[in-house]
Amino acid sequence: MKGKMKGVTLVADWDPKPKFELGSKDIEDRQTYLGSLVYRNPRIEIKEYDIPTPGPEEVLLEVKACGICGSDVHMAQADDDGYIYYPGLTGFPCILGHELSGVVVEAGKKAFDKQTNKPFKGGERVTTEEMLWCASCKPCSDGYPNHCEHLDEIGFNINGAFAKYMVLPARTLWSLEPLAESYNDDDIFLAGSLVEPTSVAYNAVIERGGGIRPGDRVVVLSGGPIGIAACAILKRAGASMVIISEPQEERAKLALKLGADVAINPTEVDFADRVLELTKGMGADLFMEATGLPEIVYPGIEKVIWEGRTLNSTIVVTARAEAKIPVTGEVLQVRRANIVGAQGHSGHGTFPRVISSMADGMDMTPMITKKIRLEEVPENIIELQTNREECKITCLIK
Amino acid sequence: MKGKMKGVTLVADWDPKPKFELGSKDIEDRQTYLGSLVYRNPRIEIKEYDIPTPGPEEVLLEVKACGICGSDVHMAQADDDGYIYYPGLTGFPCILGHELSGVVVEAGKKAFDKQTNKPFKGGERVTTEEMLWCASCKPCSDGYPNHCEHLDEIGFNINGAFAKYMVLPARTLWSLEPLAESYNDDDIFLAGSLVEPTSVAYNAVIERGGGIRPGDRVVVLSGGPIGIAACAILKRAGASMVIISEPQEERAKLALKLGADVAINPTEVDFADRVLELTKGMGADLFMEATGLPEIVYPGIEKVIWEGRTLNSTIVVTARAEAKIPVTGEVLQVRRANIVGAQGHSGHGTFPRVISSMADGMDMTPMITKKIRLEEVPENIIELQTNREECKITCLIK
Amino acid sequence: MKGKMKGVTLVADWDPKPKFELGSKDIEDRQTYLGSLVYRNPRIEIKEYDIPTPGPEEVLLEVKACGICGSDVHMAQADDDGYIYYPGLTGFPCILGHELSGVVVEAGKKAFDKQTNKPFKGGERVTTEEMLWCASCKPCSDGYPNHCEHLDEIGFNINGAFAKYMVLPARTLWSLEPLAESYNDDDIFLAGSLVEPTSVAYNAVIERGGGIRPGDRVVVLSGGPIGIAACAILKRAGASMVIISEPQEERAKLALKLGADVAINPTEVDFADRVLELTKGMGADLFMEATGLPEIVYPGIEKVIWEGRTLNSTIVVTARAEAKIPVTGEVLQVRRANIVGAQGHSGHGTFPRVISSMADGMDMTPMITKKIRLEEVPENIIELQTNREECKITCLIK
Amino acid sequence: MKGKMKGVTLVADWDPKPKFELGSKDIEDRQTYLGSLVYRNPRIEIKEYDIPTPGPEEVLLEVKACGICGSDVHMAQADDDGYIYYPGLTGFPCILGHELSGVVVEAGKKAFDKQTNKPFKGGERVTTEEMLWCASCKPCSDGYPNHCEHLDEIGFNINGAFAKYMVLPARTLWSLEPLAESYNDDDIFLAGSLVEPTSVAYNAVIERGGGIRPGDRVVVLSGGPIGIAACAILKRAGASMVIISEPQEERAKLALKLGADVAINPTEVDFADRVLELTKGMGADLFMEATGLPEIVYPGIEKVIWEGRTLNSTIVVTARAEAKIPVTGEVLQVRRANIVGAQGHSGHGTFPRVISSMADGMDMTPMITKKIRLEEVPENIIELQTNREECKITCLIK
Repeated sequence: MKGKMKGVTLVADWDPKPKFELGSKDIEDRQTYLGSLVYRNPRIEIKEYDIPTPGPEEVLLEVKACGICGSDVHMAQADDDGYIYYPGLTGFPCILGHELSGVVVEAGKKAFDKQTNKPFKGGERVTTEEMLWCASCKPCSDGYPNHCEHLDEIGFNINGAFAKYMVLPARTLWSLEPLAESYNDDDIFLAGSLVEPTSVAYNAVIERGGGIRPGDRVVVLSGGPIGIAACAILKRAGASMVIISEPQEERAKLALKLGADVAINPTEVDFADRVLELTKGMGADLFMEATGLPEIVYPGIEKVIWEGRTLNSTIVVTARAEAKIPVTGEVLQVRRANIVGAQGHSGHGTFPRVISSMADGMDMTPMITKKIRLEEVPENIIELQTNREECKITCLIK
Repeated sequence: MKGKMKGVTLVADWDPKPKFELGSKDIEDRQTYLGSLVYRNPRIEIKEYDIPTPGPEEVLLEVKACGICGSDVHMAQADDDGYIYYPGLTGFPCILGHELSGVVVEAGKKAFDKQTNKPFKGGERVTTEEMLWCASCKPCSDGYPNHCEHLDEIGFNINGAFAKYMVLPARTLWSLEPLAESYNDDDIFLAGSLVEPTSVAYNAVIERGGGIRPGDRVVVLSGGPIGIAACAILKRAGASMVIISEPQEERAKLALKLGADVAINPTEVDFADRVLELTKGMGADLFMEATGLPEIVYPGIEKVIWEGRTLNSTIVVTARAEAKIPVTGEVLQVRRANIVGAQGHSGHGTFPRVISSMADGMDMTPMITKKIRLEEVPENIIELQTNREECKITCLIK
Repeated sequence: MKGKMKGVTLVADWDPKPKFELGSKDIEDRQTYLGSLVYRNPRIEIKEYDIPTPGPEEVLLEVKACGICGSDVHMAQADDDGYIYYPGLTGFPCILGHELSGVVVEAGKKAFDKQTNKPFKGGERVTTEEMLWCASCKPCSDGYPNHCEHLDEIGFNINGAFAKYMVLPARTLWSLEPLAESYNDDDIFLAGSLVEPTSVAYNAVIERGGGIRPGDRVVVLSGGPIGIAACAILKRAGASMVIISEPQEERAKLALKLGADVAINPTEVDFADRVLELTKGMGADLFMEATGLPEIVYPGIEKVIWEGRTLNSTIVVTARAEAKIPVTGEVLQVRRANIVGAQGHSGHGTFPRVISSMADGMDMTPMITKKIRLEEVPENIIELQTNREECKITCLIK
Repeated sequence: MKGKMKGVTLVADWDPKPKFELGSKDIEDRQTYLGSLVYRNPRIEIKEYDIPTPGPEEVLLEVKACGICGSDVHMAQADDDGYIYYPGLTGFPCILGHELSGVVVEAGKKAFDKQTNKPFKGGERVTTEEMLWCASCKPCSDGYPNHCEHLDEIGFNINGAFAKYMVLPARTLWSLEPLAESYNDDDIFLAGSLVEPTSVAYNAVIERGGGIRPGDRVVVLSGGPIGIAACAILKRAGASMVIISEPQEERAKLALKLGADVAINPTEVDFADRVLELTKGMGADLFMEATGLPEIVYPGIEKVIWEGRTLNSTIVVTARAEAKIPVTGEVLQVRRANIVGAQGHSGHGTFPRVISSMADGMDMTPMITKKIRLEEVPENIIELQTNREECKITCLIK
């Protein structure tokens, strides 16, 4: 397919700070694993591109919907010295957008649809993992693609989905056809664009947190999109009580709508006391830490575990944070508790299980609080630097 | 507490068949692990007893509700030679009844309530495990009370709950107070009497079957009380599709009401073909075999696994059967599948999780299709020898 | 690298039996998943080939050692109608040989060494998985490469290692450099050629069997190369007793040398009675079934589990067999036992762990009972149709 | 059995500090869970006692060997204000000693030997868990006796083993008869007295740490008795490299003798750099933290995980410490790592597996560096307040 298309592109200057050294995976003037130490003066531009051509194991996708993620915001946001906020893998200029759904337009001969185990023929509705794992390094070979040593990321160092078309490897695509029973045509794509963030939450609480048993109690700290998705998943997994701790009212309400049973405003009540009260002194089996403020919230988590009577509590570290977690070993010992770190969304059967859960009624679309057109993406990315009321702003591409 | 009470008592003659030898746990003229080889001419009599007195680690319970279990029926049912159907642990005469709930009347000084970690004081609403595990043998010490080497069973070789009062060790009691938020006074006891059979199902699919991940597909074979409870638990655990296979319409309807998404009548359609069709060729992650007819149903299970594309399927053997399961090793190998056996309901945090699930809305009471008085228990046990339409007949004791 | 080389090639006629239908993965006249229904009149020929050229993610390997596997024997062996014995994936003509080690000669630019996470530069000593998993199908994406839906197999439908050179994807290679501390130059390659069969055993007992805890007791049925390797691995994993059941004396002795504590000749003593006697009535935690004769050996396994006092026994089905396993569900229930199927050797960190175990002293080379030259491979493959005394015949290629 | 015996008794004054409040499990003037806040002026006295009489589920034991534990030292050691060092459960006066072995002299009628599943008859050689779990509280019912809510501890609030006789519940006894194949008469008791501390290590690395797979690399921090036992267990479990980090030479040597492959002196070399060098940049799969100095050692552990390439590392917190562990969440996330707390030795099949490992050659007796008589216990407990060279001082009682 030939032609031109527009892409919402992040442009920034390669201007490494003095202390920066080119790492083993970095490429001079092209990409780095330490974005905030290198890229300066970010700006979002709508640029024109040739429609890309898929290789033999790839497909050309017509993008239908793509949500704005916090990392999009942080790539476009500069600190006082002009460096971008986002600290991770980046390679600019790059079309942004990685929470996407679309329709297969063309497919290489060796591009297989995992849903049918047959080659893509065009017309299939799909979503994709954001992480393009290499399938060849040691972590990938051992079954841990979220920890790929040669990772590319859509919309970070590989052109993303705020564009009419994009090329993707068949390997990371997942069919959205199972959603056709539960959603009409347009809504399939909205729901489909939420599979990726929902899978981040699923990977955190089910794969890394080890899941729960029906009847367990859980606490989710922070009602951002990942925390809200965790509430939905954990309620669906049989939690007898899902407690969301979130200071902002709109987010708490959304969490309650999607699965939480009770909301705590930790700026108004004592978090630990309230959790112990709600659980009649039992505490919780799983804590999802999604605030990124461990030094603030961890003592409360520890108090719930120490004073509660639940053994085997798992704390899932989901948000990134620079601050140390002040862990009291004795709490882990006396309560048989454990702490795990969570990263990514790939592998472990996560995407297909999120999709089949959505097909069976786990509706995440209320998380989309605003729908926009492609031309409106730049201003909305900027808007989200300050706006805390929208949960998910999603671009529909016609 | 002094006084008299009536108890629905199973009486039978100790008349061992020639091939029977007294086993290591058997007691001449008192109890055997091989009931159907020993006990003859069963009859149910309502006898008068002294109200029993609790020891220091025991409580006296006023029974409020008790369901009739299939094993009650089989203990009272004779074959052509007059021997009872029930093949397991039995010690007659014995008051029947083990699916019970009640109120604590008196408690020994060392009888602790696990819910509060304080001594029982009277008035607590509770249910009990049916298995009185010894807490001292190797399996109990290692954490497997369902496989206790010195087991007593309520209503089998220890007086049971078809009576106004009974004595129980505190160890096996579980508080029903959490149900007070969801049920009114009478219904707490009805729901509470279903905790034991629901825990049998929970132990099978969650503890022994390893549970599922949200989005998984499951098949339950047979819509008896245990199979129906499994449907409820697995739907609550996040199954995207719960398929019940059951020939009888009333039972299938009840399964659909409590959690199943689709029912198959295996006498009318090909079981395997239908499961593959419903799952769009994927098959299922968990099969709960509760029919007791392995030679009939297993080939169909195997076909679903072999032709379906799901790896890691688990088959949980729940019902007892004399027939061999004809297993094709290659199916387990090529599909990475496994077979586990399930027995019991004790330990592993099962009872408290079933109770907290019920408190959060997992309502099992539609399983009770008939309520009776104590005097009506004998005739209803007999009735159930032929009646296949009632799911659970429950005695309310006033 | 240009030039010619000789390859030990399996040639056979594509002559499908009447009942054969071309399957979804079969290619007319080129390959089939049902070898024994299609290929006739097998013969081994030493043919001349161009030295192959590696693609960007591949390496050219100089082969140093390659063992003969039972499947090599069965591909070259014809039944009374002339059809080959081997029932699985085959595509002839094909150079045989898949238990190999060698040295990297040339490498594509994107061919990374997992050991160093850097591109191969030539000179690295390596071995390979035999299974060329696709990394794109659903099983591969979910982390189960042993169940790849687009599998190629070295020496079955892809040219193998009974040749001076071969091309392999970097993805399936594993460095043997860690062995340099424990083996001298030649022996590295001998040990390295045993990594693949040892990994089949490791996958069976550790990954699929779930491993053991130090102090557990295990039984391995059949002292072929996989069974012997399992003895070595399980002893190393801390088994307090490894029992090998094997009728042939040479094999039993080899098992005892590599890790077994006791050997049973099941043709001379009652298998179950002897295991119970050796374990003082406890039975075993893990049974590795590698005989391929389930109807003969399974009743003995069941007797050990039923009469023994060990709970949670795992039976690992490792050998392929057409006969059904006659499983008594009650044994699985009463003893909390389970049956799993094992296939393959890829993924799950198996290869690197086998290599580091060998580097630390798990010496498998006594399994090599005969060393031969490339020209001697055909006659030795034929010889093994009847000879049961050799354990592993290995070709050294100079 | 009637008569008198001597017991090495810890006596101290009940003199609570002002901030102390009687806890729910404390008994005024009799026992407390906060020893160091209550007991003052400890002294060790050899007192005379009546030989105790066993109840129906108990046995009378003739003690044969008992090791001195660090907690014995800390109970007898006073700080500047005269309060004991030991912070946990204590009830004085109390005969000390909990790492013991002995011979059954008399047994209650319901005192069963788990090894034979028959009543004790006298003459059996046994050891015991130190923790007398109640078998009735919620943790015990759920299978977690190490977290019993009504715990008694031998030699802390229940008379211990520095005496000729003692009474113990059959529930916590484990037969040492399996050791008779590997040890002669006296050495059975020496080995048997080490089962308890070895089980603490086993519980930490196998039960709580999740064990390892053969070929994994492990690091043990601190070469006290528990750390040394962990080296022995992990080597036996198949670790390809066991690294002990211990500043004191005698302890490092003992660790090397019992299972460690390499010793690091962290006061002389950089711990993290050395581990990375030894493992060729891979890091380790399991870290056992037994120093009790988390703020000192944790940054080194984190560096190994961050810079190493091993995913899924587990850090087992084994030693008690008041200081916080300064955990960087991102390390757990990027490396898929986790932290667990370990406590106790009971349950989970640990004792019998330690005993069968010892019977198969896991010889821990080199840990006993000094043997003493009962009369010498008091002076040796005092001696160990300053002596860091002895590993285990064990009392033989004739």
